[in-house]
Amino acid sequence: MKKDRNKQSAPAGKAGGKNGKVFDANLFAAESVKSLKAYVPGEQPSGGGWVKLNTNEFPYPPSPRVAEAIIAELKGGRDANLRLYPNPESRALRRAVAEHFGLEEKNAIIGNGSDDILNLAVRAFADKNLRIGAMRLSYSLYPVLANIQGAKYEEFDFGKNFSIPTRRICESGVNIFFLTSPNAPTAHGYEISEVEKLLKSFKGLVLIDEAYAPFSKAGSAACLVKKYKNAIVVCTMSKGWALAGMRVGWALADESAIGVLDKVRDSYNVDRLAQAAALAAIKDKSYYRRLCAKIVSTRAATEKFFDKIGFGYVPSSANFILVRPAANGKSGADVAADLFGHLKSEKILVRYFASDPLVNDSLRVTVGTPEEMEKFKESVKRWIGSQK
Amino acid sequence: MKKDRNKQSAPAGKAGGKNGKVFDANLFAAESVKSLKAYVPGEQPSGGGWVKLNTNEFPYPPSPRVAEAIIAELKGGRDANLRLYPNPESRALRRAVAEHFGLEEKNAIIGNGSDDILNLAVRAFADKNLRIGAMRLSYSLYPVLANIQGAKYEEFDFGKNFSIPTRRICESGVNIFFLTSPNAPTAHGYEISEVEKLLKSFKGLVLIDEAYAPFSKAGSAACLVKKYKNAIVVCTMSKGWALAGMRVGWALADESAIGVLDKVRDSYNVDRLAQAAALAAIKDKSYYRRLCAKIVSTRAATEKFFDKIGFGYVPSSANFILVRPAANGKSGADVAADLFGHLKSEKILVRYFASDPLVNDSLRVTVGTPEEMEKFKESVKRWIGSQK
Repeated sequence: MKKDRNKQSAPAGKAGGKNGKVFDANLFAAESVKSLKAYVPGEQPSGGGWVKLNTNEFPYPPSPRVAEAIIAELKGGRDANLRLYPNPESRALRRAVAEHFGLEEKNAIIGNGSDDILNLAVRAFADKNLRIGAMRLSYSLYPVLANIQGAKYEEFDFGKNFSIPTRRICESGVNIFFLTSPNAPTAHGYEISEVEKLLKSFKGLVLIDEAYAPFSKAGSAACLVKKYKNAIVVCTMSKGWALAGMRVGWALADESAIGVLDKVRDSYNVDRLAQAAALAAIKDKSYYRRLCAKIVSTRAATEKFFDKIGFGYVPSSANFILVRPAANGKSGADVAADLFGHLKSEKILVRYFASDPLVNDSLRVTVGTPEEMEKFKESVKRWIGSQK
Repeated sequence: MKKDRNKQSAPAGKAGGKNGKVFDANLFAAESVKSLKAYVPGEQPSGGGWVKLNTNEFPYPPSPRVAEAIIAELKGGRDANLRLYPNPESRALRRAVAEHFGLEEKNAIIGNGSDDILNLAVRAFADKNLRIGAMRLSYSLYPVLANIQGAKYEEFDFGKNFSIPTRRICESGVNIFFLTSPNAPTAHGYEISEVEKLLKSFKGLVLIDEAYAPFSKAGSAACLVKKYKNAIVVCTMSKGWALAGMRVGWALADESAIGVLDKVRDSYNVDRLAQAAALAAIKDKSYYRRLCAKIVSTRAATEKFFDKIGFGYVPSSANFILVRPAANGKSGADVAADLFGHLKSEKILVRYFASDPLVNDSLRVTVGTPEEMEKFKESVKRWIGSQK
């Protein structure tokens, strides 16, 4: 650090000044942050008219109960007004989420999106000496969070057919293992029994990040929390509850794990309207059951389309499909990039991880409404036509 | 860590089980978190009927523009729906906040409350080798954040009349100094020239946490950001904009410091409705100017009352007063605790820091509406009467 500091003039008063050197706050940054590459979220285009299949949002609006609850909270009067701090622990929401999964309030913590929870888990259970493990591939935020924390991040290759390499994980000695289940970006789903095997064999903590569980046959792993005290089941309302705009997520775990996460949590991490919105959404079970089923059926139709045109894909347990486009029998990064560009030129956004050699021959396509998927398919067909 | 792990049975499958040992996730916690004492926020009572003078909330509701903006965002239609992620960088709000203070968008970052920003600053600019400095007393969250980060936290006694000990800070070699300005919990305000002197002399970063600046004569230190590249001016909408329930705060600083903070920020840290609410509030200047003036005048009346009954206090530049109650000419922790209990028994909540010997002879009283302060004064008078 000292060496870096000497490279620049004293910041105060001299910045951009006398000796022509430019102030750079990065020289004051923590060691782990200096070389950090930030997480890059998917594009959020401004202006309308896009078919947005790039960030796995729910294609239907949230339950009508959500807007009602927000307006009721707005009209709460003097004692329940936006001028007052929210309930610091999101108590009512903890209770409702825990009940939804057959658990108790003490087993739940609420986050400002599940990214908040993942961040808390890294801060609570990883450091210079406590390593994090995860599959290669996984949610690409994990290594960024590990880097900020200065914690070692260890990647594990899939077993056969995307299976969990339980033995290798057990032998590794990592302190906490992050399992994206269903996996992202492959969309491969795990059976509850496979997750249970890991929890049973592994002596460390297992964080099961089940953002996409509402779209999977296996369902939530929350049923394992009572039996396996080393399980931390994390989910977001961004995917399965159509509330990406409101930033609400949770963890369900043993009381002692919740206690540790609470210690590093911001006191007031979820605002009044987000708490009200989430509470209304989690209670409207039938609304989401119906629409999740609709998405699953649109997903099946989309997979059928890929079969027909000869695009390879991983059978999906999520609300997106990782598909490998082919033109004249050829696949590869060039082909995927070309289709990505074609779709974008027709105002259809999908996700392309250009810099990852494991998936840069593929596109990650969110399952939208049937109408959106028709537009997507028509555009793909035009692209295929243009390749001949 | 290894030693700790061996103390307990393997968590998986055995929890609460066979050998009677109870699973404790704390044994898996990072070194800095194991012994951490979490920050304790002020009480947020449920149910109505309280005169709430304990967490420095704005006593008047937010601008009516706020509810309008929230409802407009709710009705945004398919392309601006809660199902979609918010703008990740809160772009429009960055622009509006920067403009409010005569700066540019590149000089602003928005947080999920200013606690989020303070947390980012600690993660970005402190670590095992980079120390944090702050006054003793300051906002009691700072040392908690430093502990989570495993960063050394150095406290500096006030100079004469609560002045900033600039020479001692300059000699200390801390990497970043957190200045609560106006100070909390004393409510003492600093002149802009005093803050400028620190920025000019000190070679590290200075984070000016000005949550209470809207109530001070000196006003915001944002005017120093262009000249002093080592300044990071942090504020919240919880105090001066009546939006504690919505969790919005910001930092204004050199572009390079904003860039470092952005690297450690959660991608979508501020939800759609919070962005909309904050944007509407920051634009309604006249509404807040009028009500801040009203609060300042109620504060003056409250100080006058304390003069009259012989309670000592620090002249306040904030929306609260640190007051030292006296009974029969005596002050002290017992006296303060007794008045605190009396007020609470009459459903009036103020803040009492019982465990801090520097202030446990005092109470921190938020300046409420004139009606609330009447109730407070009447209750204090009854307490005085009962002491004779």
